[in-house]
Amino acid sequence: MVASEPTPGEAAELEAMYATMSRENMVPLWTQIDELMPMVPSPAAVPHVWRWDTILPLAARAGDLVPVGRGGERRAIALANPGLGGLPYATPTLWAAVQYLGGLETAPEHRHSQSAFRFVVEGEGVWTVVNGDPVRMSRGDFLPQPGWNFHGHHNDTDAPMAWIDGLDIPFVRGMDAGFFEFGTERVTDEATPDISRSERLWCHPGLRPLSRLEDTPATPIGAYRWEYTDRALSEQLALEDEGYPATVGQGHAAVRYANPTTGGDVIPTIRAEFHRLRPGVATRTTREVGSSVYQVFEGQGAFVLNGERTTVTKGDMIVVPSWAAASIEAETQFDLFTFGDQPIFERLHLNRTFIEGQTTTKDQHQ
Amino acid sequence: MVASEPTPGEAAELEAMYATMSRENMVPLWTQIDELMPMVPSPAAVPHVWRWDTILPLAARAGDLVPVGRGGERRAIALANPGLGGLPYATPTLWAAVQYLGGLETAPEHRHSQSAFRFVVEGEGVWTVVNGDPVRMSRGDFLPQPGWNFHGHHNDTDAPMAWIDGLDIPFVRGMDAGFFEFGTERVTDEATPDISRSERLWCHPGLRPLSRLEDTPATPIGAYRWEYTDRALSEQLALEDEGYPATVGQGHAAVRYANPTTGGDVIPTIRAEFHRLRPGVATRTTREVGSSVYQVFEGQGAFVLNGERTTVTKGDMIVVPSWAAASIEAETQFDLFTFGDQPIFERLHLNRTFIEGQTTTKDQHQ
Amino acid sequence: MVASEPTPGEAAELEAMYATMSRENMVPLWTQIDELMPMVPSPAAVPHVWRWDTILPLAARAGDLVPVGRGGERRAIALANPGLGGLPYATPTLWAAVQYLGGLETAPEHRHSQSAFRFVVEGEGVWTVVNGDPVRMSRGDFLPQPGWNFHGHHNDTDAPMAWIDGLDIPFVRGMDAGFFEFGTERVTDEATPDISRSERLWCHPGLRPLSRLEDTPATPIGAYRWEYTDRALSEQLALEDEGYPATVGQGHAAVRYANPTTGGDVIPTIRAEFHRLRPGVATRTTREVGSSVYQVFEGQGAFVLNGERTTVTKGDMIVVPSWAAASIEAETQFDLFTFGDQPIFERLHLNRTFIEGQTTTKDQHQ
Amino acid sequence: MVASEPTPGEAAELEAMYATMSRENMVPLWTQIDELMPMVPSPAAVPHVWRWDTILPLAARAGDLVPVGRGGERRAIALANPGLGGLPYATPTLWAAVQYLGGLETAPEHRHSQSAFRFVVEGEGVWTVVNGDPVRMSRGDFLPQPGWNFHGHHNDTDAPMAWIDGLDIPFVRGMDAGFFEFGTERVTDEATPDISRSERLWCHPGLRPLSRLEDTPATPIGAYRWEYTDRALSEQLALEDEGYPATVGQGHAAVRYANPTTGGDVIPTIRAEFHRLRPGVATRTTREVGSSVYQVFEGQGAFVLNGERTTVTKGDMIVVPSWAAASIEAETQFDLFTFGDQPIFERLHLNRTFIEGQTTTKDQHQ
Repeated sequence: MVASEPTPGEAAELEAMYATMSRENMVPLWTQIDELMPMVPSPAAVPHVWRWDTILPLAARAGDLVPVGRGGERRAIALANPGLGGLPYATPTLWAAVQYLGGLETAPEHRHSQSAFRFVVEGEGVWTVVNGDPVRMSRGDFLPQPGWNFHGHHNDTDAPMAWIDGLDIPFVRGMDAGFFEFGTERVTDEATPDISRSERLWCHPGLRPLSRLEDTPATPIGAYRWEYTDRALSEQLALEDEGYPATVGQGHAAVRYANPTTGGDVIPTIRAEFHRLRPGVATRTTREVGSSVYQVFEGQGAFVLNGERTTVTKGDMIVVPSWAAASIEAETQFDLFTFGDQPIFERLHLNRTFIEGQTTTKDQHQ
Repeated sequence: MVASEPTPGEAAELEAMYATMSRENMVPLWTQIDELMPMVPSPAAVPHVWRWDTILPLAARAGDLVPVGRGGERRAIALANPGLGGLPYATPTLWAAVQYLGGLETAPEHRHSQSAFRFVVEGEGVWTVVNGDPVRMSRGDFLPQPGWNFHGHHNDTDAPMAWIDGLDIPFVRGMDAGFFEFGTERVTDEATPDISRSERLWCHPGLRPLSRLEDTPATPIGAYRWEYTDRALSEQLALEDEGYPATVGQGHAAVRYANPTTGGDVIPTIRAEFHRLRPGVATRTTREVGSSVYQVFEGQGAFVLNGERTTVTKGDMIVVPSWAAASIEAETQFDLFTFGDQPIFERLHLNRTFIEGQTTTKDQHQ
Repeated sequence: MVASEPTPGEAAELEAMYATMSRENMVPLWTQIDELMPMVPSPAAVPHVWRWDTILPLAARAGDLVPVGRGGERRAIALANPGLGGLPYATPTLWAAVQYLGGLETAPEHRHSQSAFRFVVEGEGVWTVVNGDPVRMSRGDFLPQPGWNFHGHHNDTDAPMAWIDGLDIPFVRGMDAGFFEFGTERVTDEATPDISRSERLWCHPGLRPLSRLEDTPATPIGAYRWEYTDRALSEQLALEDEGYPATVGQGHAAVRYANPTTGGDVIPTIRAEFHRLRPGVATRTTREVGSSVYQVFEGQGAFVLNGERTTVTKGDMIVVPSWAAASIEAETQFDLFTFGDQPIFERLHLNRTFIEGQTTTKDQHQ
Repeated sequence: MVASEPTPGEAAELEAMYATMSRENMVPLWTQIDELMPMVPSPAAVPHVWRWDTILPLAARAGDLVPVGRGGERRAIALANPGLGGLPYATPTLWAAVQYLGGLETAPEHRHSQSAFRFVVEGEGVWTVVNGDPVRMSRGDFLPQPGWNFHGHHNDTDAPMAWIDGLDIPFVRGMDAGFFEFGTERVTDEATPDISRSERLWCHPGLRPLSRLEDTPATPIGAYRWEYTDRALSEQLALEDEGYPATVGQGHAAVRYANPTTGGDVIPTIRAEFHRLRPGVATRTTREVGSSVYQVFEGQGAFVLNGERTTVTKGDMIVVPSWAAASIEAETQFDLFTFGDQPIFERLHLNRTFIEGQTTTKDQHQ
């Protein structure tokens, strides 16, 4: 950006000045602005797919070799985005991992300001205990564990179980906002009820307990059961068939997991949704500020990310970085769980979305 | 407030001045302040009980004598608070009525800025159609119809059906905020589905359709089914038995009907709740700003209002004016539907509650 | 709405039924619906103008004849809308009065849940003391006194002073939400500072005291000074002259008095604004839900209300009922203070506005 | 966390597994949890002080050697936190720089989703043009430039001027949320008015233009003038002297720059405040989630950061990382400008504060 080529004398003076700046812990903007302030988001994170038939055997192998317990806390293996230099981060904000608990094992209780959830693509037998409330984990269930709640897991059966964990660990680490406390070695309640107390209080549609009128930043529901999710999606498609507006796009049903005290996202930093596409349906190519992780729950299809098409199937996990051009194509009925960091951007008015073929972007600026 | 007795000359001058004021459409504060600004709310409305075995036969009699149709619009008979001079107002803000629809009759469609709901203490066979969505009405169901939605009712059976209507008619009339439009003579959809499209979209606990992310001032749910209400109350009492906090008071379960897009009240001007008391339980005597109407859904008990105790049973309707001292006593298990105008006061920061035996009032002022 | 003329026998049966209903405190909807639920708001209140040269002499007369003090509390004379049967209500929600305080007189302290403000069309010399903070009252000042703050007034001079009071007395009375407490006979602080402590804390544009980070339902500012209002209006017109968007309409500058903790209305139930029209400017004919009171501060013009044109000048007070068609025409530069009840309707989603010549209404329904 | 020492065979198996994981872009939690999820925030950023008499000459030197113009965009030199490996970041979220504009120079217009502000510790002569509105920059002024507004600067005098820039560049970069667009080479309006149009519209205390009723995520005010800030602080201390609560602590006046449309922070991601301490006053040692930058505006004092005390004087800049123990001591009257990222944490419910000597932390968790 220096208008003309400096003379050798000028160059020497410049170099001396830059050296002084460096020694004084100062850095010029003009040499770095392209990197610091690109025209559009240019993430280091890249689109990537992890295969369930790679993930699961590795988790099982760890189940053989690594004990679970205090210190390591969890037998969880994180997706490390290939663009992020080996850090255990799916994206700059999101942690996504598979967790594996052997028969009769217990993951000890702790709490942290990071928010977490579990999603179960297959299996059963583990109860996660959140602030003393045992919550059954079964296929298709979404189980949030908002920040600073004590929680542990225990396997009530002889068979191992695996599920995925999502957290805002990278975000909270980068922001220097994390607190952590150890709890008990064993879970505080080893009961194995079919439904948790949180569900018994909260999972009656449209009804709010009079004893719980204060809004909470995160959802008080401990489990969003597959039975309800599946039915909600089926009903949207049935309504579409009957000619009523119910889906987000033709052949595309979707629900967002919500905090019943506000109608907003389940967790202040994390959005979670479930999508179902009819066979043959493709979503419009979309770019949005914020990153997402998907897991295929059932069926087969493809992700087209920045122009590259990858076929995926049950259990496969896909990372979509910020502003990546993304489209999803369904070969069979295609059921997808997804989570992302969009609530952060919406709360800070930094969200922006671009849908190909539409003339305007939808964002806070315009 | 004139410090000393005026002389006859002064009295004449005063009288002349008051006459001038009156002619000029002006009124002094100092002669009226006690009435205008009492120390505590002193409603003209009084506590009162209407008996179901009076209400229902009168409604049936009207069914014989009065046709339903365009012009009169509804065969509804309102509770007229004895303190309100013959006005068809349960309280200064609330309309409460019984509506009666004979076999195969139709109440034509219309819409109005007043918000409404139905609650069914007994019977079935009628579908209410809200913006084209037919909603079955059955015992124990709460069916909101927020302002400016077209709605009509039709009886699909040979037998008559009665239910109660609640609206904010007195409030909207007093505030000069009412708009009204006629719709079709017949309901726009005569189908009789078991559940409405609104329920199929919205009644999956904690799940929000991605096609409906915009918050609405009133609930989008057309029916809050008894099955869910009953289960929610039973679970609260069961949790209490197991030693967990779930009820609003010992032996007192309660839910508030909520708008799932916000977690708040179903209607901006109306709160609606369902309470269940165990036999022998009595609530603490409470005064609150705002008025309420109760209907006994099942069981037997008593209301103690401003010190006067009245026994009530299934279908009886009870009005509690603003700031009346109120306590409820359960003889059997006692199930109560109730609605009130509290959201108005909360949104305007005029709410205040006094519970006997507590040292402080809970309100916005202190 | 009875389809055909009843036979004499039917008529007798109907009459007997209506008599029974009346005895049982019940009223049919079908005979009353037109009155209860009109097509558009049909207020009993009517547009009306009170002349300052009528109001002020009457107030002065009361100053001669009626002492001010505990019991009567205030020497205030209310505008009584001719349509409201002699009630001291400007509209169904708003109280508007002239208050008059003789030389060296004191209006004793009290507090009430009703919210109040003062506006000074002329004069000076009185301090109003709000929660112990003495606030000078001078021409053009707007002085809010939100609900439940102790307040009294004292005249520090030999000359009398008059001003207008606005309150939500009719609304709070109709809603049975009023509380009242007596305070001291004398004001708690007889100092006469030029600016109040509330102004010293809050009246620095865009700056919020770090000691006052909690939002309050009503404004913490005790006086909105004429100097600032006048300058704000002048700047809007100057910006318009320079070609920048600043006014609400060509030649029409306006400010809303705001709560600096939220940016919203000064009082939950009352909106207050100041408008300035250039000579020759006329506003578009507008209907809105909610009622307003205007006082001419300076200049001459006309109000056209439901088609009737009335010329008004300094001090004159004008009432505009809900949904009245209203237009304002400026003959000279025309300065107007106004207050209304619109925040109530906005918070309850009952607001609606219709501007003649525009094809759509702007409201919550459409 | 492996309970006992592995045998050589086990160690080999473990090593093989870790190698597989690495190849598959997966990373175990149990080997990294201490780093990822520390007990309390353990920032890489460190407390640090930059001296104005180092900063300013370096900026002047750059003024001699480096032209300002399209490409480099700005002659700004950033504080690079010594803990952040040479990145031009004051903290993980905040950019803090000195910007230098020579006589008659222009910094070209551009816009970006990053939010910015200027603060002027000394000098004058530059106008910053925000969306076409020229804003004078003078000593003590705080000048926000929220995201996506076009802006440029031009020096109307022969003398150079320096000021500090604050932005959320590191946050937006880390979050992959940045957009950038070039504007005109020259500023779009070279007028040099004493006050900007934004001030003429908005800087009348408590008054909101009726033409601007829509809330904006960031402040619409282009300049918060020193005259008002100084007076607000003086009044707080005077009120304290008179015995009224006005300061945040004994001898400690402070204001927060606010968005008048909401009462909240000026910018969604950045908080800005001005503090004045009387001589001899020391603040209580405090830790909070989130990082801050201070600049001494006037006077002399010390920062005690994680136990280390540094004396600072006019122009010096101090960085306080997240959760650092910080106290400020005033030797003379001590005037401090400060900005930080606290709004991010508050909006995401990740804020937490610990004040030494108080028994509880104030945060969302407890």
